[in-house]
Amino acid sequence: MSAESHHTPNRVPPKTVSAPTLKRLPLYHRFLKELAGAGRTSFSCTDIGADLDLDPTQVRKDLESVGVVGRPRVGYQLANVIPLLEEFLGWHNVHDAFLAGAGSMGSALLGYRKFEQCGLNIVAAFDTDQEKIGLKIKGKQVLPLEKLASLAGRMHVGMGIITVPAAEAQAVADLMVAGGIRAIWNFAPIRLRVPEHVIVHNEDLYCSLAGLSQKLSESLKAGSGSRGSPRKLPTATKHKNN
Amino acid sequence: MSAESHHTPNRVPPKTVSAPTLKRLPLYHRFLKELAGAGRTSFSCTDIGADLDLDPTQVRKDLESVGVVGRPRVGYQLANVIPLLEEFLGWHNVHDAFLAGAGSMGSALLGYRKFEQCGLNIVAAFDTDQEKIGLKIKGKQVLPLEKLASLAGRMHVGMGIITVPAAEAQAVADLMVAGGIRAIWNFAPIRLRVPEHVIVHNEDLYCSLAGLSQKLSESLKAGSGSRGSPRKLPTATKHKNN
Repeated sequence: MSAESHHTPNRVPPKTVSAPTLKRLPLYHRFLKELAGAGRTSFSCTDIGADLDLDPTQVRKDLESVGVVGRPRVGYQLANVIPLLEEFLGWHNVHDAFLAGAGSMGSALLGYRKFEQCGLNIVAAFDTDQEKIGLKIKGKQVLPLEKLASLAGRMHVGMGIITVPAAEAQAVADLMVAGGIRAIWNFAPIRLRVPEHVIVHNEDLYCSLAGLSQKLSESLKAGSGSRGSPRKLPTATKHKNN
Repeated sequence: MSAESHHTPNRVPPKTVSAPTLKRLPLYHRFLKELAGAGRTSFSCTDIGADLDLDPTQVRKDLESVGVVGRPRVGYQLANVIPLLEEFLGWHNVHDAFLAGAGSMGSALLGYRKFEQCGLNIVAAFDTDQEKIGLKIKGKQVLPLEKLASLAGRMHVGMGIITVPAAEAQAVADLMVAGGIRAIWNFAPIRLRVPEHVIVHNEDLYCSLAGLSQKLSESLKAGSGSRGSPRKLPTATKHKNN
């Protein structure tokens, strides 16, 4: 658990990391795992930069900011850097989580097996629907929502995932806060009011969609002159080519 | 459909909008709809700023960048601004979409009724699973994946949603591109390779989780001295308070 326990070489003290860096680090991690899987043992910032369309200097700074430095000519050792990234990203500290809202999005998340590799252990799901309470969904027990706060407190659960409708999300967040939950992953399209010490990450699919729709509209406007031609209308005999 | 068709007052020509602005605009839209729902007719940048913890000057610039200007002392009229935001966000132009991967995440998205209000019309789902093909999920037909490209071309579908496993996502993206799809909303944890004219928005839940886990780990480290005390261990009689 100690941050100092392994890989003392190649390290500088980690600084506070910016939000854009934090978004890039998991992408680096994924790419480095691919390299390692392909039998590579070392890499350069240029390797990452080329894969992710980033300036290698940016990559070097990002790695430095989490305490990773390369050696001249040698570059970075995958065997050192991958665990450091995982440690920084908190994947070595497993966080227990409660999920509220065992509807279709909640059930989908309960089935994401790879979350566990990322240090997320969804302990149980909560719902108000009597038809769902008592069931197991993707192997996780569904419990009555009114037990969430007391169980979170007793079990020292640190994270809450909200997949209830917008109208119910604030009440659920209040229960989570009452239970001592410190980080909320919110899938409901609503801005939650929580005390300052509670971290909220909003996964707002409507906002994402808005951004994408807007870019698509722009792109169609810009390219409307040449829109017809690049599209090949398939004929009956062409179907099998797909 | 013409951008010039309504509300010529209170407008300046829209500029290119930055990614952070584009993320904030749907939040403004949601808040303004709330105000309108509460019977208000006008608002100021300070109203939005106070709700979303933003500098009112930032709000004013954001609104300006999509062509909305307020009037001194009067502020902004909700009845003017809401449709302008919706138009800018592309919600007046309905985009037809195909969804590939009718698993649990795909099914959850098929059930998001509010997408339609945001201008997204999911026309059909596609899968390779013979058990799913031919079924209707949340009212949408599941078709064989090999028909995706030809149907997208014939029906001029502009958007693709990818909810297949990572290992299959690139092949699905290739089918979408072959069918003339111009914007891809990618839920698979993989970086897609697509031609330059195709827009990709990655909804990477693992990256989101990584950011949240990291912040939670930091917060627990910082607050570890006082961690025990604010947590109230519930007693049997306290359960009903929740």
